[in-house]
Amino acid sequence: MELDRLKGVLRQNATPSAQRRENTAEHSWHLAIMGLVLEDQSPIPVDRVKVLCMLLLHDVVEIDAGDTFAYDHASHDDKAEREAQAADRLFGLLPSDQNVEFRAIWDEFEDGQTAESKLARALDRLQPILMNHRCGASSSWAKHGITKEQVLNRNREVEDLSAALWALLNRCCNEAVAQGFLKP
Amino acid sequence: MELDRLKGVLRQNATPSAQRRENTAEHSWHLAIMGLVLEDQSPIPVDRVKVLCMLLLHDVVEIDAGDTFAYDHASHDDKAEREAQAADRLFGLLPSDQNVEFRAIWDEFEDGQTAESKLARALDRLQPILMNHRCGASSSWAKHGITKEQVLNRNREVEDLSAALWALLNRCCNEAVAQGFLKP
Repeated sequence: MELDRLKGVLRQNATPSAQRRENTAEHSWHLAIMGLVLEDQSPIPVDRVKVLCMLLLHDVVEIDAGDTFAYDHASHDDKAEREAQAADRLFGLLPSDQNVEFRAIWDEFEDGQTAESKLARALDRLQPILMNHRCGASSSWAKHGITKEQVLNRNREVEDLSAALWALLNRCCNEAVAQGFLKP
Repeated sequence: MELDRLKGVLRQNATPSAQRRENTAEHSWHLAIMGLVLEDQSPIPVDRVKVLCMLLLHDVVEIDAGDTFAYDHASHDDKAEREAQAADRLFGLLPSDQNVEFRAIWDEFEDGQTAESKLARALDRLQPILMNHRCGASSSWAKHGITKEQVLNRNREVEDLSAALWALLNRCCNEAVAQGFLKP
């Protein structure tokens, strides 16, 4: 029941199909299937179950810590501390063996050093780009006056993972600039 | 991008935290984590990755076929056919190896004969019970005048899986009857 609360945490980006802000629960579902479908974009073979667990669990801390907008530098100052406290409380609701197991998976995602976490983190970057690209004038890019340079700088983890996904990300940005809802 | 559309498919039950109807994307996320946390409720050990894939994918057919209310018998007459056509189209968007793999997982869920699909199907039954129990007067039980007998008859897959989860389901029903939002 505690997990139900993540359905009420709203992200900055919209969902183009539903024409409203996306919540973190449905974002996590979308990402998990992206992890399935795009696992071959990792240059190193990945453990599928670990990727799925990471993507399902990576944002549960937002139940307590809320969503931090990617381009809000002030809120990022204490993000790690707020999220670690949330992880203590939320994973702490589970029996101790599950607490230890799922907390380790969440920590591994945060650290971003393994093949699984590199794939998961890059997809977590890519997914809102795809949403914003499709949302056009109602995108969070348009709403907050974001520049292409900000998007590229913020999402280098995609470049580090996969040339194909980086090319896709660049195409989305270029089309958004041409259509006037992302600043050059 | 096609998956984004599942965020706009509304289920009959509400989400108690967000105080609105639940959509099928966030329902699927919730279920996938329930599959992780409750996998030990299966009397036979399960393949975790298969359970997660099933729960992530089991309802994608609703993108085309919509959500069918559990107690709407007329809509259930052609549900299987509508959903099979949806599976043809949606899994058919993938490269052929992924089409074959994910379609087989979806078929296995629908058939409900393996340990993984029995666990997944029982949790898919249990999750809206938990939501309705918490929603009280705004539950779909209250809205549609559902009886406890209907709930118990509809959800025998939970009884077949786990005595502990069946006891939980019965407790939810008894409390709902006592509070007057589920008919005796």
